[in-house]
Amino acid sequence: MEGGPRARDLYLQRPPEPVFGIQRSREESLFSVVGVPFDSTSSYRPGQRFAPREIRLASLELESNGYYVEGDIDRVPIADEGDVAAVPGSALLTLERVARVVEDLAREGKVPVVLGGEHLVTLGVLRGLAAAGLRPCVIVLDAHFDLRNDYLGERFSHATVFRRTVEELGLKLLYIGVRAYEKSEEVLASESGLIEYVPMGRLDIIGVEGAVLAARRFAGGCDRIYISIDMDFYDPAYAPGVGNPEPGGASSREGLALASQLGDRRVCGVDVVEVSPPYDPGGVTSILAAKTLQELLLSAWLRMGRDG
Amino acid sequence: MEGGPRARDLYLQRPPEPVFGIQRSREESLFSVVGVPFDSTSSYRPGQRFAPREIRLASLELESNGYYVEGDIDRVPIADEGDVAAVPGSALLTLERVARVVEDLAREGKVPVVLGGEHLVTLGVLRGLAAAGLRPCVIVLDAHFDLRNDYLGERFSHATVFRRTVEELGLKLLYIGVRAYEKSEEVLASESGLIEYVPMGRLDIIGVEGAVLAARRFAGGCDRIYISIDMDFYDPAYAPGVGNPEPGGASSREGLALASQLGDRRVCGVDVVEVSPPYDPGGVTSILAAKTLQELLLSAWLRMGRDG
Amino acid sequence: MEGGPRARDLYLQRPPEPVFGIQRSREESLFSVVGVPFDSTSSYRPGQRFAPREIRLASLELESNGYYVEGDIDRVPIADEGDVAAVPGSALLTLERVARVVEDLAREGKVPVVLGGEHLVTLGVLRGLAAAGLRPCVIVLDAHFDLRNDYLGERFSHATVFRRTVEELGLKLLYIGVRAYEKSEEVLASESGLIEYVPMGRLDIIGVEGAVLAARRFAGGCDRIYISIDMDFYDPAYAPGVGNPEPGGASSREGLALASQLGDRRVCGVDVVEVSPPYDPGGVTSILAAKTLQELLLSAWLRMGRDG
Amino acid sequence: MEGGPRARDLYLQRPPEPVFGIQRSREESLFSVVGVPFDSTSSYRPGQRFAPREIRLASLELESNGYYVEGDIDRVPIADEGDVAAVPGSALLTLERVARVVEDLAREGKVPVVLGGEHLVTLGVLRGLAAAGLRPCVIVLDAHFDLRNDYLGERFSHATVFRRTVEELGLKLLYIGVRAYEKSEEVLASESGLIEYVPMGRLDIIGVEGAVLAARRFAGGCDRIYISIDMDFYDPAYAPGVGNPEPGGASSREGLALASQLGDRRVCGVDVVEVSPPYDPGGVTSILAAKTLQELLLSAWLRMGRDG
Amino acid sequence: MEGGPRARDLYLQRPPEPVFGIQRSREESLFSVVGVPFDSTSSYRPGQRFAPREIRLASLELESNGYYVEGDIDRVPIADEGDVAAVPGSALLTLERVARVVEDLAREGKVPVVLGGEHLVTLGVLRGLAAAGLRPCVIVLDAHFDLRNDYLGERFSHATVFRRTVEELGLKLLYIGVRAYEKSEEVLASESGLIEYVPMGRLDIIGVEGAVLAARRFAGGCDRIYISIDMDFYDPAYAPGVGNPEPGGASSREGLALASQLGDRRVCGVDVVEVSPPYDPGGVTSILAAKTLQELLLSAWLRMGRDG
Amino acid sequence: MEGGPRARDLYLQRPPEPVFGIQRSREESLFSVVGVPFDSTSSYRPGQRFAPREIRLASLELESNGYYVEGDIDRVPIADEGDVAAVPGSALLTLERVARVVEDLAREGKVPVVLGGEHLVTLGVLRGLAAAGLRPCVIVLDAHFDLRNDYLGERFSHATVFRRTVEELGLKLLYIGVRAYEKSEEVLASESGLIEYVPMGRLDIIGVEGAVLAARRFAGGCDRIYISIDMDFYDPAYAPGVGNPEPGGASSREGLALASQLGDRRVCGVDVVEVSPPYDPGGVTSILAAKTLQELLLSAWLRMGRDG
Ligand SMILES: [Mn+2]
Ligand SMILES: [Mn+2]
Ligand SMILES: [Mn+2]
Ligand SMILES: [Mn+2]
Ligand SMILES: [Mn+2]
Ligand SMILES: [Mn+2]
Ligand SMILES: [Mn+2]
Ligand SMILES: [Mn+2]
Ligand SMILES: [Mn+2]
Ligand SMILES: [Mn+2]
Ligand SMILES: [Mn+2]
Ligand SMILES: [Mn+2]
Repeated sequence: MEGGPRARDLYLQRPPEPVFGIQRSREESLFSVVGVPFDSTSSYRPGQRFAPREIRLASLELESNGYYVEGDIDRVPIADEGDVAAVPGSALLTLERVARVVEDLAREGKVPVVLGGEHLVTLGVLRGLAAAGLRPCVIVLDAHFDLRNDYLGERFSHATVFRRTVEELGLKLLYIGVRAYEKSEEVLASESGLIEYVPMGRLDIIGVEGAVLAARRFAGGCDRIYISIDMDFYDPAYAPGVGNPEPGGASSREGLALASQLGDRRVCGVDVVEVSPPYDPGGVTSILAAKTLQELLLSAWLRMGRDG
Repeated sequence: MEGGPRARDLYLQRPPEPVFGIQRSREESLFSVVGVPFDSTSSYRPGQRFAPREIRLASLELESNGYYVEGDIDRVPIADEGDVAAVPGSALLTLERVARVVEDLAREGKVPVVLGGEHLVTLGVLRGLAAAGLRPCVIVLDAHFDLRNDYLGERFSHATVFRRTVEELGLKLLYIGVRAYEKSEEVLASESGLIEYVPMGRLDIIGVEGAVLAARRFAGGCDRIYISIDMDFYDPAYAPGVGNPEPGGASSREGLALASQLGDRRVCGVDVVEVSPPYDPGGVTSILAAKTLQELLLSAWLRMGRDG
Repeated sequence: MEGGPRARDLYLQRPPEPVFGIQRSREESLFSVVGVPFDSTSSYRPGQRFAPREIRLASLELESNGYYVEGDIDRVPIADEGDVAAVPGSALLTLERVARVVEDLAREGKVPVVLGGEHLVTLGVLRGLAAAGLRPCVIVLDAHFDLRNDYLGERFSHATVFRRTVEELGLKLLYIGVRAYEKSEEVLASESGLIEYVPMGRLDIIGVEGAVLAARRFAGGCDRIYISIDMDFYDPAYAPGVGNPEPGGASSREGLALASQLGDRRVCGVDVVEVSPPYDPGGVTSILAAKTLQELLLSAWLRMGRDG
Repeated sequence: MEGGPRARDLYLQRPPEPVFGIQRSREESLFSVVGVPFDSTSSYRPGQRFAPREIRLASLELESNGYYVEGDIDRVPIADEGDVAAVPGSALLTLERVARVVEDLAREGKVPVVLGGEHLVTLGVLRGLAAAGLRPCVIVLDAHFDLRNDYLGERFSHATVFRRTVEELGLKLLYIGVRAYEKSEEVLASESGLIEYVPMGRLDIIGVEGAVLAARRFAGGCDRIYISIDMDFYDPAYAPGVGNPEPGGASSREGLALASQLGDRRVCGVDVVEVSPPYDPGGVTSILAAKTLQELLLSAWLRMGRDG
Repeated sequence: MEGGPRARDLYLQRPPEPVFGIQRSREESLFSVVGVPFDSTSSYRPGQRFAPREIRLASLELESNGYYVEGDIDRVPIADEGDVAAVPGSALLTLERVARVVEDLAREGKVPVVLGGEHLVTLGVLRGLAAAGLRPCVIVLDAHFDLRNDYLGERFSHATVFRRTVEELGLKLLYIGVRAYEKSEEVLASESGLIEYVPMGRLDIIGVEGAVLAARRFAGGCDRIYISIDMDFYDPAYAPGVGNPEPGGASSREGLALASQLGDRRVCGVDVVEVSPPYDPGGVTSILAAKTLQELLLSAWLRMGRDG
Repeated sequence: MEGGPRARDLYLQRPPEPVFGIQRSREESLFSVVGVPFDSTSSYRPGQRFAPREIRLASLELESNGYYVEGDIDRVPIADEGDVAAVPGSALLTLERVARVVEDLAREGKVPVVLGGEHLVTLGVLRGLAAAGLRPCVIVLDAHFDLRNDYLGERFSHATVFRRTVEELGLKLLYIGVRAYEKSEEVLASESGLIEYVPMGRLDIIGVEGAVLAARRFAGGCDRIYISIDMDFYDPAYAPGVGNPEPGGASSREGLALASQLGDRRVCGVDVVEVSPPYDPGGVTSILAAKTLQELLLSAWLRMGRDG
């Protein structure tokens, strides 16, 4: 790939207002924000294509302090590289573009921070990391397993993303907050040797601290960690604007506290997916997505010990 | 009534998309879903007439697993009989039709599962059960007592439904989550020998487990149990789309956990009322209503020990 | 009725912000504004109960000049008497209260200006006028005839209001803009000797001027004129927030021009009905209702020749 | 195809509430309504997948009379066959299913009436007709040509549907109301021998009557006529809830008058596409879509001379 | 000021529907409700000007009982004096009018109860109290400190209100629930001898009871107490309709329990600010604001020991 | 001003997605787009601060062809310089910044194209032009005169903008579409020698062509022309999302046709103001604003004869 044009020159559009209002140079930055305005396989409520824009706008209104972490996001070396030119109707082309962009970033030593789009985009990100030689353990905050084999005959979909991940890449997965699934997904989750999960009902009992312990145990033997946050992890009271709202989820305080403790020096990628602005009249879901990302990036950065 | 046409042939419209996507035959089914699109006496925010349709649609997007109960709603023998032909402006005619439909169903050994409409429809259901010889103890999840004598001179209203129930039918009532009332209602609730209640402030202290214990104690001597869920039991954060939102209510996790433990082999009827879709922009109230019903029916079915 | 309390003391609530911000004393006023927050028989989209409040608020933002009439609404002797205490669920009680209030007002020589509520309230108004000895010819701007005999068995409904009017009171009717009806309504409209109509398709051809001529001809032999404006007369583009939107209706310019020419010295009552604020997100329907009323009252007042 | 299962048995779901509330038997019916809840290639505002449901619901509130045509939709032999099982994310699979369903219907002598979904579904319909031996002239009401070669590299999209139609099937096209396009589309429209168009600016001058004359001229030598209505033909004031709103469009009166004159005995298929309910807060776009379809079907039926 | 007209005669408009439906005479009343429909300095989401109206309307739907306090709001001597004539675009004029109105009320021994408007109005209230000789300790429920020196060069703004309060009036401040701030604000809060705070993260641990203890300690040496409630103290799930939503806030049960324990015999003023109705589609924020105020006033009144 | 920093470097923020997606270099550009996100004096519905962002986004979805003008906006030399840093709550500071930015642009020979914000920003623009030596005749499309002397005591407001313009700068004004005003404004408009107007009622009669003739006559003796478009010129059916909706306005076809004929080689500035996105649920007002601007700029450019 060295000889030709960089994927990020091919597929990334001019960056609009950057996330958190932070725009470091390519050289200075560690975290590279990339939006993927794609929602063609969404099965219930589309509109995730508008999420990158809305999450960026929401992030501009946040103060820079951490809630659960001492620190200031303004000191974190973030660059917002803009949006991948997603292709409406083509998961194939879009995933390929995402993968190439992520591969480039990872080869340059950047940590991609992806703003979905629907959850399927995570497959593109993980493929890109793999192409760059990174095979992280994956922590997923989600109400769902997304482990179906196909959805109405289509194998590439937000509902199948981790089935493909397991099959193609063989990565280890830990789910937190899962609560709605087909029988076949539960069976796979239980029988595959790669998958662990903390269902929402268990989180209710062990609390955020218990979930953090579970995540530490899971990540014990991992070189790299990837964190994927499907906003339907939260209860619809806190995050109404998602593709598939599931009652009985986490509160904002639980989610923010969790995000602020998942930061880790081994983090090699992060995403926040499934925000659907047309179903988010007051914009509160985008705000919560931005804040969750802020706590996560801040805590990762602090644990990397590089501030100052 | 044997000689003439069945009420359900007279008053039920062709069933649209069935709740949970389950449509067993009349013979196979135990739970008979009936919608009552009626809201003429609503005093604040009308629109409950649209709730049966929206709850059905929301239910189609739910996965079939229970959250707090091991089991699968697809195995529960449910039939969706469609909507009663409610008459806008006439509580009299509508209640009569509801009662006749419910009586027919109960005589056939079915458990009516009613989708309101406003809370007044519960009176029609209880009358129908009584006509079929069933006089259940009633557990009500509600922010209100609905025990007024009249509302601006009108004696049949969502605000008077349990006053009429006590007067006409003499049934025992247990309220959970009540928090807003006129003085006269509290006096009646305290002094009538028929009524018990767990106010929201008490639920805060004793938790879902305490409330379940209270329900078990209450139902101790009962042959039959009826469960009526006014969605304003939930906090408006979780259920904004209701006729009379009252702050300070239950969370979705509390409500779902409670519903999953109220199931009982003696259940002879269930309703979910007061969802008002025009005030539910993102549809989250309908989704929560559908999920609450799912947990309740699943737990009742499992406790009936008939699965398999 | 002389000996007892006045109906308007019994049933009218304390006036909130008055229409157009005008509040003359009882003695000085000619036009008496009365709201009727009632919608219990609405068959499709309820919420008309909130219309009096929203039309009042919208009217406060209007400038006082006429568009199509030279004049200033501030000079018109209007008093806003507040809302009739409508009874949710009871058309019977509500109509009776409306009729008694209107009768009182008419006996005092006032011209009632009624803010619905649903169209059924017009029956209460016309009964009240009749009780005071006034039997006007009625001009109706409406997409519908509202001439059904019953609606799902209920005889008193917005869909039957003029059938009852014809049967009970034998008044002459002229419809303008009608375009959606059952066959039975068209037959009655054509065969009853009392009814004339200018369908919307004809208005398209003869224009506002033609409709005004038709109204003049119709009113030729009448002592008194009553004007009833169902906001669904307008196209849903102009008035989306109504109970039963019908495409293909009048534009705002047509409606305002028409209203400004229907004013007449013989006007003994006026109403504006069917605004449904929950279906009027930007509030444009309430604004148009207020403006239509302003043009109508201003033109009536000017034709009464009493200004100054 | 004779030996295997019918496509309509494979891909059509159980019919929900039928359009206009009319459900004739398969034998009796001439017009076969089919919904296609698909929007994966939409480039701006998705949500067209919800349109079949909303148009059906809106149609139930319409009266049965024609506005611009004497007649009653209840007499038209319509059957609502339900929705094709569209596959989120796969235009390929969805178009194939649409085509097979339409082919079956056409072979049985039915006139398919398709409720989109995005405009791309028209390609599936026309392929299905072609497979059954029907090659109609196509009249398109649209603000756009939809004649691009590809959209961000994707060749099958709502923006390319008629480019594919011309290439694959060589059908003749007449556009009415077109007003927004890329240069390349205008060139193709002007230079291809197959395409005529009446731009919106011209419609402004020649009026509905002129457009009807143009359509008659266009259809002069055609055996069969297909009519495709993209709701963005209307001005966003009348139809805000569409995928790509374009100001300066037709009024509801223009559109309904036009639809009521396009009916023709040679009509072999019809569609109404691009309604996007999430962007249609008051539901007025769905209502207008339903009414437009009603006028069109009624006028076609009357011109077929088969009533009675 | 004695010789001229009273400010409240100059600047207060005719009272609309009073808060809680309670309207005692000037003489009988202790709590004087005043709305301030002002939002000109809002930096993110304006619309607070509409809050007084919406909070009043919401309050009318509440029952009169306390949730966490035994008592009935109907017995509390409240008068609703209407809205101050705020001047769009002029903080200067508006603050002056607020201060003069409040000064008058305080001199008459009334406790002003202010419905914002944006948080800047609190400065006017505190100035007015100071002019009448009252220098209370101030308890602030807020997600923010509002301690900036200026906002884009403007020194009078909702974001600077307590900086000005400290500078001008030297009052002591206790914040509860604060969680988002600039570094400079945290420094000032920590180093100024006047300011204490319980951050949201601490509230999470010590609970409502801990916060009440902190408030008691803070108020120990105070003669007078003022309570200011910025509705963004609540989580956006509970209060989406605010000017600057901040995730991770209080639940309704926490806020109501807190309000019901902050009542105190020394209370000399109260405000509820920052509700923004255009961002509150279902109206739940206004309802929660009204209920919070109800608990607060009821508990203050009971602690004053004057009931009966 | 030469010695110090350029105002545009001081006050303009980094340009986000440019209007129409066109971003020529400073040197190449003739039209310089500047947003002014200011709404502090809005008297009814605030939110105009969000208009620059929404108009830009809407413009990106438009095709590049003119409707009423032959031509392509992509060929017009436009640069989008971003938004002036408006100061919430301070008209003084904001107007000064606008004026300085506009002065700089005008001195460089650019034509400022201003996206409001409320109408008051036009005063800043005209002051800036005057400072650069340009004193244009002003054509205003507006439902209002905006000629009040003060609004509740505030002299700088959207309701007084042209009173200040006349007093301060003595410019000639032509209004088109005016229909709502105080008596004092009409008097001033009629008696000042500087003002002409075509009321909406007259536009109804003379049509777009008549209005264009009036504009040509008015501009006959002018060296420079400025065009200010208040979106409330349009009827609320077409432009619901404005600060002060007035029924009875222009249709989109009238407005676009007019805009496409007002372009003139003497144009030295243009603005589009008063869009209020919070009141524009489906975004149609922003789309119409963008399209109106597109026709206007395209026609101006073509009349300047510089294309190619
Ligand atoms: Mn999920
Ligand atoms: Mn997921
Ligand atoms: Mn209740
Ligand atoms: Mn209830
Ligand atoms: Mn009507
Ligand atoms: Mn009517
Ligand atoms: Mn189109
Ligand atoms: Mn199209
Ligand atoms: Mn705050
Ligand atoms: Mn604050
Ligand atoms: Mn203006
Ligand atoms: Mn204006």
